[in-house]
Amino acid sequence: MQRILNNPVNYVDEMLDGLYAAAPNQVTYVNNDKRCLVSKYKKKGKVGIATGGGSGHLPLFLGYVGKGLLDGCCVGGVFQSPSPDQMLEVTKEINQGAGVLYIYGNYGGDIMNFDMAKDMADMEDIEVRQVVAGEDVLSSPKGAENKRRGVAGIFYVYKVAGAAAEDMLSLDEVERLAKKTCDNVRTIGMALSPCIIPEKGAANFSLPEGKMEIGMGIHGEPGIKLEDLKTADEIVDQMMDPLLKDLPYESGDEVSVLINGLGATPREELYIVFRRVAQILEEKGIKVFNTYVGEYATSMDMAGMSISLLKLDDELKKYISMPFETPFMTQNQL
Amino acid sequence: MQRILNNPVNYVDEMLDGLYAAAPNQVTYVNNDKRCLVSKYKKKGKVGIATGGGSGHLPLFLGYVGKGLLDGCCVGGVFQSPSPDQMLEVTKEINQGAGVLYIYGNYGGDIMNFDMAKDMADMEDIEVRQVVAGEDVLSSPKGAENKRRGVAGIFYVYKVAGAAAEDMLSLDEVERLAKKTCDNVRTIGMALSPCIIPEKGAANFSLPEGKMEIGMGIHGEPGIKLEDLKTADEIVDQMMDPLLKDLPYESGDEVSVLINGLGATPREELYIVFRRVAQILEEKGIKVFNTYVGEYATSMDMAGMSISLLKLDDELKKYISMPFETPFMTQNQL
Repeated sequence: MQRILNNPVNYVDEMLDGLYAAAPNQVTYVNNDKRCLVSKYKKKGKVGIATGGGSGHLPLFLGYVGKGLLDGCCVGGVFQSPSPDQMLEVTKEINQGAGVLYIYGNYGGDIMNFDMAKDMADMEDIEVRQVVAGEDVLSSPKGAENKRRGVAGIFYVYKVAGAAAEDMLSLDEVERLAKKTCDNVRTIGMALSPCIIPEKGAANFSLPEGKMEIGMGIHGEPGIKLEDLKTADEIVDQMMDPLLKDLPYESGDEVSVLINGLGATPREELYIVFRRVAQILEEKGIKVFNTYVGEYATSMDMAGMSISLLKLDDELKKYISMPFETPFMTQNQL
Repeated sequence: MQRILNNPVNYVDEMLDGLYAAAPNQVTYVNNDKRCLVSKYKKKGKVGIATGGGSGHLPLFLGYVGKGLLDGCCVGGVFQSPSPDQMLEVTKEINQGAGVLYIYGNYGGDIMNFDMAKDMADMEDIEVRQVVAGEDVLSSPKGAENKRRGVAGIFYVYKVAGAAAEDMLSLDEVERLAKKTCDNVRTIGMALSPCIIPEKGAANFSLPEGKMEIGMGIHGEPGIKLEDLKTADEIVDQMMDPLLKDLPYESGDEVSVLINGLGATPREELYIVFRRVAQILEEKGIKVFNTYVGEYATSMDMAGMSISLLKLDDELKKYISMPFETPFMTQNQL
């Protein structure tokens, strides 16, 4: 395991120590629990937005807390859900009187715990709504979209909802826009290598040299099938076909594109991927509004990438274009 | 080789196709040569700044061209210098009448080619100055600093010079500030795995499982010695000792800290590294002004990281604090 670690048991908490030390002006924590991160940026009367999930996916989830995005986040151990109590503490802290929206990925543990946190918040008279992101096309067929996993495309849900809240929209409106974003985003991923969970010291699945798996999830959930590693263009073609057909994305549409690296895949390769994505979109008559290329939802040292598309209208373009700033990334007004 | 590639011969040019497609409003190229990248942002009468070097290090070098940073960049093949002709074309394009500063790393091929480009620019009546960054402490001993390699710390030279040029300082002043930054920045790196050069399809050096090499360069240049992989805290302690002693950085100093991932090392581990760096700086009475954690100078799929420190005074703090925006990263005013 070629990793820079101390005792793997302390992996998450030492990472958090480093994050707070690196961004002391931007983030802090509540309830004396570093796993309950909140933004130092506050705006009276703004809808609060919280997320959470397992560690090991930076910048997901912690890295999206900041001005113009989210207000708070709870993380658990690597690939483990945080607890309802932790989420309640964050909820109480970020509530500015306008209610709180939870946005998180479609995983059993997270759903159970966020549901409980919502019930507990209700008892404290904090109005909480929930939007569950699940846009991994190959994780469940059309018609059973509600079983799809949430992956990198959740960034778009954060982006739109965060900007809408910053724009002082109501909880109803922020929730509506978050759901609208979920309805218009789709992702397909592929993996080239497993990741090593520090406490286990071993890969959580195997992916032999010379093989790849399209549709594999960010925790190693099975994809379509293990197959021989192809060229970049062949891989992208194979991913774009079901991705475009699913919504569908069609001629005349305008999209935002997110090319996400899973951790170990170099940025150079992500641009090689986007080159082909842009060619296909142009051939199909689909216009690219803007592009994100980089690491948005990772699995530590996993190699691979995902492609997400968000179909835009004027309303979504407005919120995609607004600025944000977190310790992990900054966007100026587009 | 678990990589997402087409024909490896086209690695650099396809990466460039993707980059231009992803950031059409921010960057373009001159002389019909995509390896000659220039910013679309122009400011009449501003000192132009150019850099260049081998490909395979994103965001170095291309990713630093943008508002508030650099104006142009030439890249060669992976780990290969661009040509003087390419650099001349960029120089001509970015000259706004106030002269051009070249900032690049201390490598033989780059020095030879930039020197020739400067001579050619002289003949075209463009005043060119050069600042060669070399801050890798373990690549050459104290007393022979001029033989040190340039690594991730060159980011600070770009940052300060880019902000100074944006502030409309003269070529003399931008050059002085770039040199002052070089004088005050030091880096030590370590590697955990080799990188694979696409055209070769094989690692350019070996680094066995369970071993690490402190002082290794970003092309795999030898470090101090191959040794057993230690804990994160032990690794940082071993790096910070010679790093602090070299300038030296002492009690009462104020620094900017850059924790740079070499490509395959997860962001989580970089924060674990920064945690220990921050502890040591606090013990030594050295104040942290701001921190950069992420990928700033990589070697594709190499695992490892580097620590850079920049000693600050009020003048350097002013230019570190100014905003910048490139396709790869954005900083708001600090």
